Amino acid sequence: MTKLWGGRFQKSAEAWVDEFGASIGFDQQLVMEDIEGSIAHVTMLGAQGILPAEDVEKILGGLRELNVKAEAGQLEFTVANEDIHLNLEKMLIDLIGPVGGKLHTGRSRNDQVATDMHLFLKKRVAEVIDLIETFQATILEKAEQHVETIAPGYTHLQRAQPISFAHHLMAYFWMLERDKQRFTESVKRIDILPLGAGAMAGTTFPIDRLKSAELLGFSQVYQNSMDAVSDRDFIVEFLSNSSLMMAHLSRFAEEIILWSTDEFKFIELDDAFSTGSSIMPQKKNPDMAELIRGKSGRVYGNLMGLLTVLKGTPLTYNKDMQEDKEGMFDTVQTVLGSLKIFEGMVRTMTINTARLEQAVQSDFSNATELADYLATKGMPFREAHEVTGKLVFTCIQQGIYLLDLPLEEMKKESELIEADIYDVLAPVAAVSRRNSLGGTGFEQVKIQLEAAKALLS
Amino acid sequence: MTKLWGGRFQKSAEAWVDEFGASIGFDQQLVMEDIEGSIAHVTMLGAQGILPAEDVEKILGGLRELNVKAEAGQLEFTVANEDIHLNLEKMLIDLIGPVGGKLHTGRSRNDQVATDMHLFLKKRVAEVIDLIETFQATILEKAEQHVETIAPGYTHLQRAQPISFAHHLMAYFWMLERDKQRFTESVKRIDILPLGAGAMAGTTFPIDRLKSAELLGFSQVYQNSMDAVSDRDFIVEFLSNSSLMMAHLSRFAEEIILWSTDEFKFIELDDAFSTGSSIMPQKKNPDMAELIRGKSGRVYGNLMGLLTVLKGTPLTYNKDMQEDKEGMFDTVQTVLGSLKIFEGMVRTMTINTARLEQAVQSDFSNATELADYLATKGMPFREAHEVTGKLVFTCIQQGIYLLDLPLEEMKKESELIEADIYDVLAPVAAVSRRNSLGGTGFEQVKIQLEAAKALLS
Amino acid sequence: MTKLWGGRFQKSAEAWVDEFGASIGFDQQLVMEDIEGSIAHVTMLGAQGILPAEDVEKILGGLRELNVKAEAGQLEFTVANEDIHLNLEKMLIDLIGPVGGKLHTGRSRNDQVATDMHLFLKKRVAEVIDLIETFQATILEKAEQHVETIAPGYTHLQRAQPISFAHHLMAYFWMLERDKQRFTESVKRIDILPLGAGAMAGTTFPIDRLKSAELLGFSQVYQNSMDAVSDRDFIVEFLSNSSLMMAHLSRFAEEIILWSTDEFKFIELDDAFSTGSSIMPQKKNPDMAELIRGKSGRVYGNLMGLLTVLKGTPLTYNKDMQEDKEGMFDTVQTVLGSLKIFEGMVRTMTINTARLEQAVQSDFSNATELADYLATKGMPFREAHEVTGKLVFTCIQQGIYLLDLPLEEMKKESELIEADIYDVLAPVAAVSRRNSLGGTGFEQVKIQLEAAKALLS
Amino acid sequence: MTKLWGGRFQKSAEAWVDEFGASIGFDQQLVMEDIEGSIAHVTMLGAQGILPAEDVEKILGGLRELNVKAEAGQLEFTVANEDIHLNLEKMLIDLIGPVGGKLHTGRSRNDQVATDMHLFLKKRVAEVIDLIETFQATILEKAEQHVETIAPGYTHLQRAQPISFAHHLMAYFWMLERDKQRFTESVKRIDILPLGAGAMAGTTFPIDRLKSAELLGFSQVYQNSMDAVSDRDFIVEFLSNSSLMMAHLSRFAEEIILWSTDEFKFIELDDAFSTGSSIMPQKKNPDMAELIRGKSGRVYGNLMGLLTVLKGTPLTYNKDMQEDKEGMFDTVQTVLGSLKIFEGMVRTMTINTARLEQAVQSDFSNATELADYLATKGMPFREAHEVTGKLVFTCIQQGIYLLDLPLEEMKKESELIEADIYDVLAPVAAVSRRNSLGGTGFEQVKIQLEAAKALLS
Repeated sequence: MTKLWGGRFQKSAEAWVDEFGASIGFDQQLVMEDIEGSIAHVTMLGAQGILPAEDVEKILGGLRELNVKAEAGQLEFTVANEDIHLNLEKMLIDLIGPVGGKLHTGRSRNDQVATDMHLFLKKRVAEVIDLIETFQATILEKAEQHVETIAPGYTHLQRAQPISFAHHLMAYFWMLERDKQRFTESVKRIDILPLGAGAMAGTTFPIDRLKSAELLGFSQVYQNSMDAVSDRDFIVEFLSNSSLMMAHLSRFAEEIILWSTDEFKFIELDDAFSTGSSIMPQKKNPDMAELIRGKSGRVYGNLMGLLTVLKGTPLTYNKDMQEDKEGMFDTVQTVLGSLKIFEGMVRTMTINTARLEQAVQSDFSNATELADYLATKGMPFREAHEVTGKLVFTCIQQGIYLLDLPLEEMKKESELIEADIYDVLAPVAAVSRRNSLGGTGFEQVKIQLEAAKALLS
Repeated sequence: MTKLWGGRFQKSAEAWVDEFGASIGFDQQLVMEDIEGSIAHVTMLGAQGILPAEDVEKILGGLRELNVKAEAGQLEFTVANEDIHLNLEKMLIDLIGPVGGKLHTGRSRNDQVATDMHLFLKKRVAEVIDLIETFQATILEKAEQHVETIAPGYTHLQRAQPISFAHHLMAYFWMLERDKQRFTESVKRIDILPLGAGAMAGTTFPIDRLKSAELLGFSQVYQNSMDAVSDRDFIVEFLSNSSLMMAHLSRFAEEIILWSTDEFKFIELDDAFSTGSSIMPQKKNPDMAELIRGKSGRVYGNLMGLLTVLKGTPLTYNKDMQEDKEGMFDTVQTVLGSLKIFEGMVRTMTINTARLEQAVQSDFSNATELADYLATKGMPFREAHEVTGKLVFTCIQQGIYLLDLPLEEMKKESELIEADIYDVLAPVAAVSRRNSLGGTGFEQVKIQLEAAKALLS
Repeated sequence: MTKLWGGRFQKSAEAWVDEFGASIGFDQQLVMEDIEGSIAHVTMLGAQGILPAEDVEKILGGLRELNVKAEAGQLEFTVANEDIHLNLEKMLIDLIGPVGGKLHTGRSRNDQVATDMHLFLKKRVAEVIDLIETFQATILEKAEQHVETIAPGYTHLQRAQPISFAHHLMAYFWMLERDKQRFTESVKRIDILPLGAGAMAGTTFPIDRLKSAELLGFSQVYQNSMDAVSDRDFIVEFLSNSSLMMAHLSRFAEEIILWSTDEFKFIELDDAFSTGSSIMPQKKNPDMAELIRGKSGRVYGNLMGLLTVLKGTPLTYNKDMQEDKEGMFDTVQTVLGSLKIFEGMVRTMTINTARLEQAVQSDFSNATELADYLATKGMPFREAHEVTGKLVFTCIQQGIYLLDLPLEEMKKESELIEADIYDVLAPVAAVSRRNSLGGTGFEQVKIQLEAAKALLS
Repeated sequence: MTKLWGGRFQKSAEAWVDEFGASIGFDQQLVMEDIEGSIAHVTMLGAQGILPAEDVEKILGGLRELNVKAEAGQLEFTVANEDIHLNLEKMLIDLIGPVGGKLHTGRSRNDQVATDMHLFLKKRVAEVIDLIETFQATILEKAEQHVETIAPGYTHLQRAQPISFAHHLMAYFWMLERDKQRFTESVKRIDILPLGAGAMAGTTFPIDRLKSAELLGFSQVYQNSMDAVSDRDFIVEFLSNSSLMMAHLSRFAEEIILWSTDEFKFIELDDAFSTGSSIMPQKKNPDMAELIRGKSGRVYGNLMGLLTVLKGTPLTYNKDMQEDKEGMFDTVQTVLGSLKIFEGMVRTMTINTARLEQAVQSDFSNATELADYLATKGMPFREAHEVTGKLVFTCIQQGIYLLDLPLEEMKKESELIEADIYDVLAPVAAVSRRNSLGGTGFEQVKIQLEAAKALLS
């Protein structure tokens, strides 16, 4: 079929070649943004007197009609017209006649597609930020209910020191806070309009780019037209920020999965966020957490994909850049879905308080207390550490814990140990005494929760 | 709605949660393989007397009906039934009644989905191998036409030494030959049947896995049921092999793009494999080559994605593994499409012989000849290199080439240079004299082409 | 040998096991930061009365001695002491006796190493930002010399429209400006002190974390001790920002390489930034540009590496995180080196003005002018595009360019074309008329240069 | 300083530029291979009469002297000589005079470095294969001791069905078997000699490449000289194979870490493969497993790095390719170290048999037995699944397990259930009855162990 750019060509591509190169299969997701951009463009062309008012009116009429149909899902796209831009332009011409061909005055698909992407991502990042906040609020709420729930704290997945369970949950609040910061800062680089850059050199028409920016709600325009059409940094940045956020979710997911095991049993997920097995009737699987843990791979892959696409490509637009879209669409969907699901999963999960508290009774996570106790009494920390290590080993051999060890046994290793050691070794004391700024001491956790609450409101 | 695994559950997930976890959106691509696997499974169950003949008949009848509908594209899948397996099982039960529920005897979705993937990829890799061969044949044919076309050979994208253009093209033949080898070897690890591994421990039913393998055309079965359901190596291997092949295509694509520039003008692509610009009427862009160069990123990303998914997941099946599919489907499509397009692009391109030959007349790519000439006469190569370097610099200053330099000027740098140097410096001599095994000498190139031909037949 | 943490252990690891786990081979790069952190820590311990003044004095004395030795490169590290922290602690104890063991009071290696990394990266990112600015200044200076140098502008590596060469160079200025922004914003998340988080739960000693922060020049402290010791986001963010910057450099490098070819010959690199061949005496290779293009891979790999490390790791510190360092060190070195080299390469390169200007005389990059000309006269752009495409094809068949086409030939395609078309088609006119904001018109380029200058000062 | 390739240059690079481009910092690891290659090359040159016998003798004498010094670690390399090749050539000339300059006759650094890499990797892959076998033998030995140790089998990290612990361990045997296969197959593509390809076009000297191959122990030579110098596929393939193997080790590591927790306590690592904490005296951390889990990231990163380097690079050699080395060296070291450590860790770990067996007594992992029991009695599997699910739920509500449920309670859900159900539900029965090929039934596991043993011997 005849292409809109076919004047110089003597031969058409075969359908299967067209199909390989066509982007309409996925860039139709930009339909609303493409129409929005065209409306602003033609309005500006009219305001500048580049197109006569009557042409502008006709084109705007046609675009609005297309907009209505797009919202109703009534537009039918075809591979023969390659991409969303040519599809819509063809529809417009079919609708209002040759005057539709004037829409592309002073514009190229290169600045047009970049404009669509900026518009699209600006909206989506706002949604991501909103969902992060909602999830943070849920974590905060859950944490507030568990300030005094004592749980084992881990390093190397080995019990390390007893903590407030709220403190553990809040660690994710702060990761998400940084994610939110990064997404928010990235908006600065999404909120720049490329429209008016033309194919890459600007245009000879007396366009008003600031007017277009105003109409489309952008606060800046690109200052270099070659940069404008070849910049995909804002998408890479989105994928980077998303990858790091997915790393956070994958960490939290891993914990949800661990906590849901028979062995840990620290939490129980709501039925609504679990699934069963087609063969094992007893199974209740933390599928959603596993899936999100896995989806980190998808987002990392999308990041790596786009970085590879950009590597070594000369200025300005190259067809390689068409590959920027699917990874972005997929990541938007993955990130929004994962946040929404995770929020629901955390909101509805039951925390097994009894089990958590029992756990800290039967381990050595209070050993640091003993070492600190000795250090406070003046023993160099390295010696205190050595003494405590020996007492732990004694306990292991006898199958008991530190609180079970008679004072005289302790004194054998150090005369500095007195009867008050048993108070020090109690898990609740261990937690409450970690009252350093940002520590797990109850008092500190409450301060932390207040600080977090202030950030959300 | 009620799940097929819902006996133990008190509460259903909401639709949006279901949708997040559902794989039917993409695993419906496995519909033919899923039915094929079920037919073999139930046939085996009958042969082993695990199911009575009449049940087997009914189930087979139902499956065949589903098969017909699937081929006609008449099946309608629903997210409510999660995945392709439960969708089909539900359809079967709707079709033939509760007896359909017996199909899943001695099987789990875990071994079922793995079976589908093995079946699917085995077919696709065969197609990939075929397309590689077709592409190799085209390269070979093109090369045969250009054995005596002399062209500049490059290192660092600087002219290095004159070569036979056939020799350059054939470099890609050998890369593809290694790709083919790797894909072929990988079949060994795809051609293993997981069916019969059950959820992960095998089954208590007296199944015959070798019978199932025979029915499905597999030459081996997994020897460990836990490995069988958690192995995704064969997909990683496919993605690795595809990534390397895409690296090759991206290198070739880069050259196609360079050769198509105004500056090089070594080839002209057929109109059918080029596209124009929406704004610049003169443009004829090597879009397909650019797109394939870019698509390397997509495949690298898919590889990185799956490697990330697998990282650190304990045995056996985890929901994370559902993330193995989309990257595989996408890569299959990308690789098949890229090979097909590239073959057509190379087959139809015009090689600008005159331009290539003119290019080697006006450069210093014959400088090594001079150095080798001196070395042959006994001058240590390092000195010969130094002498030649100085003569090249003299030429640059005078705006001439080595063939233009008078003998006396040469002799100033070395008395070893005689009048026969001009024959040595002729590009055609430079090429034909590189007659070392595998070198660009015409004789060697012909030997190479024969060897290549033998590989294809 | 005896470990500082060995109290509970009955058996030591063999040397080769120790070596596998040891980080001293690379974390010795943190030696200055580790001492710096310790000095602040012990000062704070003294101020808080946690350690008596005389102990603090002795420890500070020892640390200062170690500092002097470290600067002189006189410290000898050993794998037997695992990492930089235990190496230094052991040296301190050897130097001042058991009191040295008190240094670790209220601190863990977990918060200590995180502190070292924050200190280290804060300094390095400042250096990166400085080098970006220097490079931007060089680009700006070069651009100022070439505002009126007309060159072919490319899309798809096909000549598209003539541009000001300054405009092309400045595209990289803006990419680097965004890189600088991102690095600058990232400082906010590097400039947070983890010290005082202890192993992960805070400490029972009455430490003053704000005091430590003040002593070390941090403007914030982590608000959650578990987050503090397991956060490696700031490194991922550094690697992400570096990857994107390397993508920019790889694009610029690709152009440097293209421009240096015999075919383009747009620039000549200074001998100081080129290398020769061991065999081909005429070669002058753009090695540095190629190397930087390649080094994008290294940095992408480091990013992917750390994202993988973090994927799915539960809180808090896990030994996996030791893998955060080498990729960071390597990236710091790569990024600093690449910026420095690139700046020198651009500063010293010669731009072949004559060649650039000649290039735009003999191509069709002025075709858009004709289409715009027709559109201005009221022809719908789509038709104008078609008409121009046909005229281009006519030229190609005759082996001429648009400026060579007689007016009557043009009029055959459209009566709207008048004699003034020849002025419009002149490359210099094509450039100067692209006077839209951010366009390549000389006036606009000057405005752009002023804006850029303002950003740097 | 003067370069060996400097004839054409008027100006030298500054030291810091040289340093950036130099590879001697890391390619000195190829010293033995480089000398080995040179010895073969000059021997061949002599045999072909290209160099006179006396020159060959002198050069061989010099090379042997360098070889002795290299083995003794007495060679001192300098950045001024860029890389290992020029460093050695310079040393040779210093040692034996200008005749040393004849060594480079008919050779280029391009084919020389490729030869070094092939030689190097061929040896290392053989080591990798050996270590895999050793590790497999250890797994096999451990498995043989635990055929009848019953343990919980997991899907989704939820208890699924009881298994033989040997079966679980053996899953890793088969993963490693595939790794071994892949590494072994890859040798075919490493065992090809590029020497004789010259800079990229072959050479005019009458060399005998098959002679060189014979001397160096290669079974093939590259058939295309351009391919020979630009092929880095064999390294990508090594990195791909290594990445997948590291994925396996990371999975096993995750299990080791889980099994070592207080919550699972399935195994205890030997003290020699564990480490302590600088602050928490009770800690015994599975550091080695964590580190290996993390090191998967490093290897994935190296793979991604090299794939990126190759993307879009035109033929033939480009300086980008220098970036192939460090990732390869690092991966070799990582893979060899990880295998060695993991083997020791598994060999010395204690399996807590009592704990494993107790675990399966108190869970619902025997639920599938009940469903299968019902299916065997003719109930469609889907119904059997539903019935069992309800009985599980009944148990959960009463805090009991299936074996505790009175027959009459069971019969309420299905009359098909008889008293023999209690035998069926016993974990040992559940395991032994899974006697399908490759299943966890004791008999099958023994068959599997025999098959494995046969593979190793």
